[in-house]
Amino acid sequence: MNLAILHRYRDELRAGLAQALHGEDTTRQMLRYHVGLETAKGEPADHLGKLLRPSLVLFVADELGAERQAALPAAIALELIHNFSLIHDDIEDKDVQRRGRPTVWSLIGVAKAINAGDLMISLALLEAVKTSPEAVLCLVDAMRDLVDGQSLDLEFESRWVTPPEYRAMIQLKTGALFRCAFELAGIVANVSSELGKRLASFGEELGMAFQVRDDMLGVWGDERDLGRPPGSDLRRRKKAYPLVSAHERASDPDRQFIEKAMKSEPVSEGDIHKILGMMERLGIRSDGEVRMQSHLQEAVKQLPYIPFSEDGLQILTSLFENLTAFMKPRNAGGN
Amino acid sequence: MNLAILHRYRDELRAGLAQALHGEDTTRQMLRYHVGLETAKGEPADHLGKLLRPSLVLFVADELGAERQAALPAAIALELIHNFSLIHDDIEDKDVQRRGRPTVWSLIGVAKAINAGDLMISLALLEAVKTSPEAVLCLVDAMRDLVDGQSLDLEFESRWVTPPEYRAMIQLKTGALFRCAFELAGIVANVSSELGKRLASFGEELGMAFQVRDDMLGVWGDERDLGRPPGSDLRRRKKAYPLVSAHERASDPDRQFIEKAMKSEPVSEGDIHKILGMMERLGIRSDGEVRMQSHLQEAVKQLPYIPFSEDGLQILTSLFENLTAFMKPRNAGGN
Repeated sequence: MNLAILHRYRDELRAGLAQALHGEDTTRQMLRYHVGLETAKGEPADHLGKLLRPSLVLFVADELGAERQAALPAAIALELIHNFSLIHDDIEDKDVQRRGRPTVWSLIGVAKAINAGDLMISLALLEAVKTSPEAVLCLVDAMRDLVDGQSLDLEFESRWVTPPEYRAMIQLKTGALFRCAFELAGIVANVSSELGKRLASFGEELGMAFQVRDDMLGVWGDERDLGRPPGSDLRRRKKAYPLVSAHERASDPDRQFIEKAMKSEPVSEGDIHKILGMMERLGIRSDGEVRMQSHLQEAVKQLPYIPFSEDGLQILTSLFENLTAFMKPRNAGGN
Repeated sequence: MNLAILHRYRDELRAGLAQALHGEDTTRQMLRYHVGLETAKGEPADHLGKLLRPSLVLFVADELGAERQAALPAAIALELIHNFSLIHDDIEDKDVQRRGRPTVWSLIGVAKAINAGDLMISLALLEAVKTSPEAVLCLVDAMRDLVDGQSLDLEFESRWVTPPEYRAMIQLKTGALFRCAFELAGIVANVSSELGKRLASFGEELGMAFQVRDDMLGVWGDERDLGRPPGSDLRRRKKAYPLVSAHERASDPDRQFIEKAMKSEPVSEGDIHKILGMMERLGIRSDGEVRMQSHLQEAVKQLPYIPFSEDGLQILTSLFENLTAFMKPRNAGGN
């Protein structure tokens, strides 16, 4: 994503992360490695992720006229909560790579990595308390939802789920932090409770659109994301949107084929190829695009009630276009 | 420990825990199992632990004249933070039993157990926010210290440490939550910052005394605690107080023997017997008792400045006597 919103706050967020995670001990060093501020050896690095969630906090806070110094700790806190969940998820999913680098647990082992994630939570909350009690409550509510979403996701590994169950899961696992990003901006800007609810709804729908897109990239790949070749989520037997949707829409024999293929470890490359073909026939890609669009349309319904500037609306439009445009060249045969 | 303080608040704490952990999902069910409210199958059970930390919160809050309904969520929050750390520590230490029952990870696997611990943190904080922003900050500070202490403890597994390093570790890992128990009582009772500091110091020293005692029980056992036969911490190669102290005091050949014995997995029963003999000769048990006494004496220095009632002082005296008396019958040859 090459977007204005992701550039505008990057230096500020980098400094905020460095400050929140400073310290000589090896656990904090590993947290700085995880967020991309340092190499595994503790040398300065430039491997920060997109920082979409905290950028949204600062952007919306700016638009609502909040003080930047109140918004920054809230933004950092949110990003740290997101990152604790990545450290623990990587252990839970046994993932050895994230954004092209070894995951924390694969470097320091499961025990220290669990504890590193726990430290990330503590440091996140220590940032949040700098803002306001309302910000802390918002963040803790979001963290509980995130963890409840992860409970569902883990439970889904041992059974097949329906698209509504899947949606309930991503609403918690991804929707909650995006919702919280917008709520935090409202909290630091002291908006009315009505506007707060509209911001929350906007954020949640944006987050769910973002997750559906991410799930589609997990199956059809993204040339800009070297970590994910086509079919990678199928290889990981991840019950993400495309697989859940294909499983529901498939004929009985095809459904049985999918279930059988996903039982073998590793999943055979031939089976992956065949499932990708099924998804093509079933129209799962375009269905996913419709799904994502519907979340974005729900978000857009809130726009007239949120006092975005001309400039702000332009930034949001670019973000929406970027989210929806990613598949089009491929549908037309490109890469 | 058969103590008045542990009986007085038990029903209230049980109800508070049940309320904080209510919910139909399997993750919350597992949290209720972990704290001892339910069996692994979700049936009502009576396996609660001692609940020493939250009992101390309520006791000190009572003594300081705080409102009970303000103190209860703080006490529950503290107990839940303690319990999140037990769930994660059990995974990190690969312990399959806790208080005579299977640990959470041994029942539901590492992935779901990590996530269950994360949920416990969220629910703890949702209790804390019911009290006050100061209580949240106190709890989050304590959680960070606890996790930093666990970082040290995990690091100690791969090297030998000195008694001062060991003390720095337990100050964080155990001292912080006891400190926080007393601080929370002060916060809900709105005490002066000077009294707050004295309460904090009292709690921290009490916590460290408690940990030294616990470490001694881990080596010499406790007939009241069926989970820990004599030598059990040596079998687990745990660098707790007796082993750290013996390692420091031993002659060079004995030290080399200890180091070699602790490298083998499992540690041989003959070596354990020999190390227990060394500890006897080196006077580690009585040294530990002196160590514990010195922490309690530090705590007692604060007593004149804390407005405990006659009844309150009696309860504290029983607690102190219980902590220090546990070894005497054994030194005299009894059990």
